Amino acid sequence: MTWMDNSIMKTRGAAGRKDGTTHHLTEAKQGKYHYTMGPYSDPVLHVEPGDRIVVETRDAFEGAIKTEQDKPTQKCTMPFLNPQNGPIMIKGAEKGDAVAVYIESMVPRGDNPRGTCAMIPEFGGLTGTYYTATLNDPLPEIVRKINVDEKWVYWSDRVTLPYKPHVGTLSCSPEIDSISSLTPDSHGGNMDLPDMGPGSVTYLPVRSAGGRLFIGDAHACQGDGEVCGVAVEYATATTIRVDLIKGWNIEWPRLENDEVIMCIGSTRPLEDATRIAYRELVRWMEKDYGFNKWDAYMMLSQCGKVRLGNFVDPKYTVGAAISKKYLVMK
Amino acid sequence: MTWMDNSIMKTRGAAGRKDGTTHHLTEAKQGKYHYTMGPYSDPVLHVEPGDRIVVETRDAFEGAIKTEQDKPTQKCTMPFLNPQNGPIMIKGAEKGDAVAVYIESMVPRGDNPRGTCAMIPEFGGLTGTYYTATLNDPLPEIVRKINVDEKWVYWSDRVTLPYKPHVGTLSCSPEIDSISSLTPDSHGGNMDLPDMGPGSVTYLPVRSAGGRLFIGDAHACQGDGEVCGVAVEYATATTIRVDLIKGWNIEWPRLENDEVIMCIGSTRPLEDATRIAYRELVRWMEKDYGFNKWDAYMMLSQCGKVRLGNFVDPKYTVGAAISKKYLVMK
Amino acid sequence: MTWMDNSIMKTRGAAGRKDGTTHHLTEAKQGKYHYTMGPYSDPVLHVEPGDRIVVETRDAFEGAIKTEQDKPTQKCTMPFLNPQNGPIMIKGAEKGDAVAVYIESMVPRGDNPRGTCAMIPEFGGLTGTYYTATLNDPLPEIVRKINVDEKWVYWSDRVTLPYKPHVGTLSCSPEIDSISSLTPDSHGGNMDLPDMGPGSVTYLPVRSAGGRLFIGDAHACQGDGEVCGVAVEYATATTIRVDLIKGWNIEWPRLENDEVIMCIGSTRPLEDATRIAYRELVRWMEKDYGFNKWDAYMMLSQCGKVRLGNFVDPKYTVGAAISKKYLVMK
Amino acid sequence: MTWMDNSIMKTRGAAGRKDGTTHHLTEAKQGKYHYTMGPYSDPVLHVEPGDRIVVETRDAFEGAIKTEQDKPTQKCTMPFLNPQNGPIMIKGAEKGDAVAVYIESMVPRGDNPRGTCAMIPEFGGLTGTYYTATLNDPLPEIVRKINVDEKWVYWSDRVTLPYKPHVGTLSCSPEIDSISSLTPDSHGGNMDLPDMGPGSVTYLPVRSAGGRLFIGDAHACQGDGEVCGVAVEYATATTIRVDLIKGWNIEWPRLENDEVIMCIGSTRPLEDATRIAYRELVRWMEKDYGFNKWDAYMMLSQCGKVRLGNFVDPKYTVGAAISKKYLVMK
Repeated sequence: MTWMDNSIMKTRGAAGRKDGTTHHLTEAKQGKYHYTMGPYSDPVLHVEPGDRIVVETRDAFEGAIKTEQDKPTQKCTMPFLNPQNGPIMIKGAEKGDAVAVYIESMVPRGDNPRGTCAMIPEFGGLTGTYYTATLNDPLPEIVRKINVDEKWVYWSDRVTLPYKPHVGTLSCSPEIDSISSLTPDSHGGNMDLPDMGPGSVTYLPVRSAGGRLFIGDAHACQGDGEVCGVAVEYATATTIRVDLIKGWNIEWPRLENDEVIMCIGSTRPLEDATRIAYRELVRWMEKDYGFNKWDAYMMLSQCGKVRLGNFVDPKYTVGAAISKKYLVMK
Repeated sequence: MTWMDNSIMKTRGAAGRKDGTTHHLTEAKQGKYHYTMGPYSDPVLHVEPGDRIVVETRDAFEGAIKTEQDKPTQKCTMPFLNPQNGPIMIKGAEKGDAVAVYIESMVPRGDNPRGTCAMIPEFGGLTGTYYTATLNDPLPEIVRKINVDEKWVYWSDRVTLPYKPHVGTLSCSPEIDSISSLTPDSHGGNMDLPDMGPGSVTYLPVRSAGGRLFIGDAHACQGDGEVCGVAVEYATATTIRVDLIKGWNIEWPRLENDEVIMCIGSTRPLEDATRIAYRELVRWMEKDYGFNKWDAYMMLSQCGKVRLGNFVDPKYTVGAAISKKYLVMK
Repeated sequence: MTWMDNSIMKTRGAAGRKDGTTHHLTEAKQGKYHYTMGPYSDPVLHVEPGDRIVVETRDAFEGAIKTEQDKPTQKCTMPFLNPQNGPIMIKGAEKGDAVAVYIESMVPRGDNPRGTCAMIPEFGGLTGTYYTATLNDPLPEIVRKINVDEKWVYWSDRVTLPYKPHVGTLSCSPEIDSISSLTPDSHGGNMDLPDMGPGSVTYLPVRSAGGRLFIGDAHACQGDGEVCGVAVEYATATTIRVDLIKGWNIEWPRLENDEVIMCIGSTRPLEDATRIAYRELVRWMEKDYGFNKWDAYMMLSQCGKVRLGNFVDPKYTVGAAISKKYLVMK
Repeated sequence: MTWMDNSIMKTRGAAGRKDGTTHHLTEAKQGKYHYTMGPYSDPVLHVEPGDRIVVETRDAFEGAIKTEQDKPTQKCTMPFLNPQNGPIMIKGAEKGDAVAVYIESMVPRGDNPRGTCAMIPEFGGLTGTYYTATLNDPLPEIVRKINVDEKWVYWSDRVTLPYKPHVGTLSCSPEIDSISSLTPDSHGGNMDLPDMGPGSVTYLPVRSAGGRLFIGDAHACQGDGEVCGVAVEYATATTIRVDLIKGWNIEWPRLENDEVIMCIGSTRPLEDATRIAYRELVRWMEKDYGFNKWDAYMMLSQCGKVRLGNFVDPKYTVGAAISKKYLVMK
């Protein structure tokens, strides 16, 4: 028995332990990728709770950066960045439910150097930007192409990094907004959390019929904060399994893995993202794990864990987590 | 000759000094009001540059708060707040142009008490909110109904305030996003700037064909920052005149009146909104008024004026302005 | 009878309407100027409530910038900037009181060009800074020397600005901290509010015996936000009259003039400075002007006025004000 | 050979591998504890580089909270909180040097329940505060007394947490400011980083002769962000070894342990603290480890680690780190 057998996905999901059909959302089947997550686009796939989907994601530059001479400012056009697969309709999903997305595996696609990193003018954590508006000259535009396999990210002659794949952008649709795939908020979106990789379950609030799941923006690895604004972006075949938690009305995305439960907040300034994440975690501990609210609050002050997603997007993302070992009922 | 004769609207507008047709965008003609500004809704009106439109705006609660016993949390449902008229299509408008909106007059509609103010739980400047998440109990929910005429806002037995009407929410459509009417950003939106009243021209970036103009959220008066989150909200017949500045590719909304030119920034934290507004103003002075960039920057440090729009919405709004008398060429 | 006869200073001050002695705090008498405001420096003057003091202030660069070739990075050394006169001891002042500082006049000292403005690397509102740390190259270092008289600030061939003098930095001492004169906080300090000029009264919390008043940083004029980080800095003979409000235990500085009462908050991010200022104003209206707390809050949402002090210092300053005409009891 | 043999402390310290004298800074020897870190207090100890000091720290409430009925608002008085030992003078330390503080061990003092946690009105991450000023009623004031030994923190019947001691507040003196021990900034101060425990070396900028080292605020454990504002506060005998890195002119504190090097930034908003930490880390990698600046920046985007210190103090603290394995020269 694994932790998954006791997960919320397995114990409260509509599919439960039943194994569903496997679908293939290929590039061809996807057709046009999406740059907003909203209720106005046509579904590309209809699945049942418990189904498995192999998704062919494109990289955040949609493959336009093939060499280190290809500059994002020349090859890409705002706002047509960070292409998303979807929307995928989950049967039975209604406003007030939560969709569970278990990531089984992420396999690189395409020829090496498959990975792309870049410094993009007025984008990133250590530069004046569109929103943190300054009069300084922008940083240089630099592109790095990186070999990636299922073990390593070959960053440079000097440094090889472990392959730690994760999904950067994941969400159901907002109810009436159609939000840029560059922006995270309470629907999920561009959270850039390294925890959202194989072996994790993400729970997303459903706000329209079918949920309308979007997924994209795979990273072969990423540091906390994604400080230059870009991870090792690459195309993948990402296998997910989806389920539906009926009547679980969560306001912000949540995540579960072998070790922790995590709540995710996204806004600016960064302290507000942190506040959201921790408040949701206090509420979760109170509601589902039998803690007194103030005890949960004071206890997280002793053992809470914080992950910085990105602090470079239009909104910043923070995950607040607690080890599952402290949740055990006695 | 008035200042309008020398305004950018008159001197660079496609209609120029020609007076156009008057349209009536009544409640009936509008039909369904909108809660997002985006490219996915059906036009309600097609106009030419120079045309005048009398718009029947609804108040931000869409008329649901009729007495002080009507609570927003019972009568209204998120995200169906702040209803917008539109989209209005302006002939010839294309991405890279600017739409000019001159507000001629704002006349109250409906019976008194026409005005509504409210304290809404977890909304406002001096309370924990959805984004500034705290564990404190919310403030009480309180509704105020207020008599309003074209001279005064009869706030209380003790205090009568001057009628200073303005449009709280104004924008063209983003290119692909469909953004909540509660949110301001570079497209305009819920800026809540008291300056945006009769006698002002607002310039809005065009990002899709026809511009797709949205307007709503009239305030009979409002303080800087709209600190409790709600102004004196009311329904109006607002008369605007629109024009089109071809090839004026502005990134953020701008405003002009008898006395000043103003640039408008909206984001969080509030210093970033201020940065955006001032940077745009430096750039405007450099491009259209012949100032050296550094001279403009240093001079605004001596004579710039800042207006706080709201600091209660999902994003905050700041206008940075300079008196026109300092722009005169010698 | 003027507004001053009804001011808090006159009606609640220990000196009341009695006119006190005039002291001269010359450069010679001051001796060493101070770069922190705290309890560890030796008094330079002892005065009684009601006394008048003519203070010879130095400019923020302590006179080191004499020509446009003098660069601040060469001529000045951090943290020895923004020199302050004081500490001035006010007889009878104890923790829990407030000191009132009425500014009578500000007369320029020294030969023209007396005024200095500068762009200083990594300082200012539209650049990466020490705290908003970026990797961009700094903006150029530029110095402007400006003629100033008691009518005008001769900014450039093209622009002449009105002389609108005010005191940039004003405070009593914190209780145990000794805070850089570049930083504003609840003690006052480097607030850079254009309202703090002749004809205004500032109320400062007393936190140690004698109050230990510090004053400096005169500006011949300044825009909202002091966007490039520097106003038109100059040396003055500033005449103030001080009084003592016993038992008026204010937490943050307050200001009163002919037209408004204002509360002042200083911190980061800017929305928090605004929150402080407005919360203090709500509390002041409740305590001293008979308003219900929630009525004050909602009413300020309709008629509150916000002044941005600076958003360039280590902390940002905001004043929130209400017109005195709305405070009249009926 | 351990990592310490290759540490900056050992390889560049003035004492080098020489083992110095052991001093005992007992409560009696300390006498009066300090509530600000500055240049105005009398030294309590003079040591040589390489010396060892056993410091008897008091808990952040200075022992005033003995039972769960003792309320901080009754037993403690602002600003007399977070008492510090020191200043300790390090022979030869001059402005432009860095002091290295290796923490050898932290042993609890006093009878159980030795540990104290509390919810203090208007203090903490999920409540309106002095700076994030709201009109909401404060959260309840709650005190928890906790048994602590060198293995465990006995939080509740349900939860036992591992003993993970660290020093919450550590700094040399600023040059002329005297800063509250509640506030972190570039001098160090109240950083509340869980990494600053036994087995770590912290490097602090020296800004006045002798360095004037202050230390206090021990925590038996603490979560990221210290969300309720208080850790498990306790009194200790903390053994440190100090050394002096001549001419290492660091602007912000740095930390080194077996696994990582870390730079520490403290300010508001939280994104600025993160910017400082990451910029310093880029600069450190460039200067001491031979990385190209842009390569370091882009690489940290793939493997940087962020620790949230506290986001509850007057300023927030972030540590940005990189694994030492990526620093190895090839």
